[in-house]
Amino acid sequence: MKTQEIILMGHGGGGLLTRQLIRDLMVRELGNPALNTLDDGACVTVPEQYLVLTTDSYVVQPIFFPGGDIGKLSVCGTVNDLAMQGAAPRYLTLGLILEEGLPVADLGRVIRSVGAAAREAGVLVAAGDTKVVERGHPGRAGRPGLFINTAGLGARKPGVDVSVSNARPGDAVIVSGTIGDHGMAIMNARENLGLESALESDVAALWSLIGPLLDVVPGVRCLRDPTRGGVAAALVDIAESSSCGIRIREEALPARREVRGACQLLGLDPLNVANEGKAVIVCRAEDEAAVLRELQRTALGRAAAVIGRATDRHAGAVVMETRAGGERMVALPTGEDLPRIC
Amino acid sequence: MKTQEIILMGHGGGGLLTRQLIRDLMVRELGNPALNTLDDGACVTVPEQYLVLTTDSYVVQPIFFPGGDIGKLSVCGTVNDLAMQGAAPRYLTLGLILEEGLPVADLGRVIRSVGAAAREAGVLVAAGDTKVVERGHPGRAGRPGLFINTAGLGARKPGVDVSVSNARPGDAVIVSGTIGDHGMAIMNARENLGLESALESDVAALWSLIGPLLDVVPGVRCLRDPTRGGVAAALVDIAESSSCGIRIREEALPARREVRGACQLLGLDPLNVANEGKAVIVCRAEDEAAVLRELQRTALGRAAAVIGRATDRHAGAVVMETRAGGERMVALPTGEDLPRIC
Repeated sequence: MKTQEIILMGHGGGGLLTRQLIRDLMVRELGNPALNTLDDGACVTVPEQYLVLTTDSYVVQPIFFPGGDIGKLSVCGTVNDLAMQGAAPRYLTLGLILEEGLPVADLGRVIRSVGAAAREAGVLVAAGDTKVVERGHPGRAGRPGLFINTAGLGARKPGVDVSVSNARPGDAVIVSGTIGDHGMAIMNARENLGLESALESDVAALWSLIGPLLDVVPGVRCLRDPTRGGVAAALVDIAESSSCGIRIREEALPARREVRGACQLLGLDPLNVANEGKAVIVCRAEDEAAVLRELQRTALGRAAAVIGRATDRHAGAVVMETRAGGERMVALPTGEDLPRIC
Repeated sequence: MKTQEIILMGHGGGGLLTRQLIRDLMVRELGNPALNTLDDGACVTVPEQYLVLTTDSYVVQPIFFPGGDIGKLSVCGTVNDLAMQGAAPRYLTLGLILEEGLPVADLGRVIRSVGAAAREAGVLVAAGDTKVVERGHPGRAGRPGLFINTAGLGARKPGVDVSVSNARPGDAVIVSGTIGDHGMAIMNARENLGLESALESDVAALWSLIGPLLDVVPGVRCLRDPTRGGVAAALVDIAESSSCGIRIREEALPARREVRGACQLLGLDPLNVANEGKAVIVCRAEDEAAVLRELQRTALGRAAAVIGRATDRHAGAVVMETRAGGERMVALPTGEDLPRIC
């Protein structure tokens, strides 16, 4: 490969190589008035004063996977963290840590994916930064990879107060679609398990689902995207923060046939497997029908389902009624089943 | 070392280990109302509508160096990018990518340093994220290290319009202090050059210098912090963006004796060496005395000096009058003299 086709240490040096990379790739694919000044900071105007600020780093391996890539994931993940606070995404920052030797074609593919996901989510990349480090964390098949950090700035929808501490006994607990898709897609791609080729990440930006939902049901109590730790971690967080119990029914959990099969084969519980395009939604019992109707109107929410209910019993704990008719505690995993999933 | 004394892959998994780390370290050292909710995004209130958004990733090696560490650097670097747009720092996000095996004591030292630097700069860490990756990029003496990304949100000072495109012929070009300190300190620490032990990074948050300066001289034209690529890159950026020339005098450049000596020994030009606590300031000729006076009142700006002037000759180019009485072009380096300097 010719040197101009791979990333060199000098691309992170702040000199001519860095500038070329920024002008030829970043500005072309992501350009907007805030970014294009290429000043140290981007000047933006945000008329609202109630804002949400969030950040996530993405270290997923492999960087390209069925259903998406690290670029799309980094935009959707951060947009979703804003959405889960009831905030419309406005601006993102994009911090790249590239491995020396990364093919410029791979970087180009990731950046085009960032651009497409940002346009689809209606968010602008306002500022960025590029660093290069020596080889050390190879990607798939020993190829050099990259890490991405995105921070997001969003404007809170007036009158909305969603927090994991707002659940009350009797509230309905809903998931917006099938669970476990992202985690099983990454596991299959990384470990060459040779499972169902239909395993595909659900990575998607959720504001197009959540924004209209909050217009119709502004009184939604809690929103949480069940990423690392899966739906289990999201429910435990809600139960603990709200000091109420949560009871769910195993048979109510929506999951694709191929995800269920892969989980069974590997001895995993789909409840613990990461999602990147789903929301856990808690709402008043009387809002349940309206929330379901609003979610199911859209492609992203077609498989939405009520999976359980908050209760005044076993405060802080999540209990699942199993298919077999028993009960078991749903606990936060200690570490993780699969590292570098996002 | 016992397992609880080093970072495990599970600390990045979103389960119990992640939660312990966040509660025992992050909240204790960095806590504030926005961060403490530990929701996916932090709700913040920013009354101003003209904001600045910026991001930088820090991959410096070694992570501890004379004068500072990666934690202090990540706060100061991002605060300075806000300051260079005339913005008061308000909120930071903190994205950590930890190497498996990192001593928890090292992480604790870095996070305490982030907390101290944030308090000193008057900025709150509103949101954070922690990922763990396999060993691969060892730090000093083969120890596992970490990368930090910080994004910053600041409020622009009303009536201030600083941009690298604002320089005009006749304007004064000022640096706020000695040049080359950070880069030479990192080089000496990393390469065990055994040079002057007095080589020390200048890493510092500049808003305490720039905020009061803009109160006194709101008409400052350009601000730029000469980090990667040094003062040379900052001046070339200003000359190109403003379509004017810049002439500087070598003998006017302030530099510590030990930095000059180390540069001479290694054949480096202090103009190209990174700084992390300095600003390049361009102002009208009639404001020059007021700017210098204001800078020199403070410890951070005591060695401030006029190093040259913008000119209507050689538009876009930077020319230095050398000590020897000659002239030479100051160019943007192609790559970098020293990777992983910030």
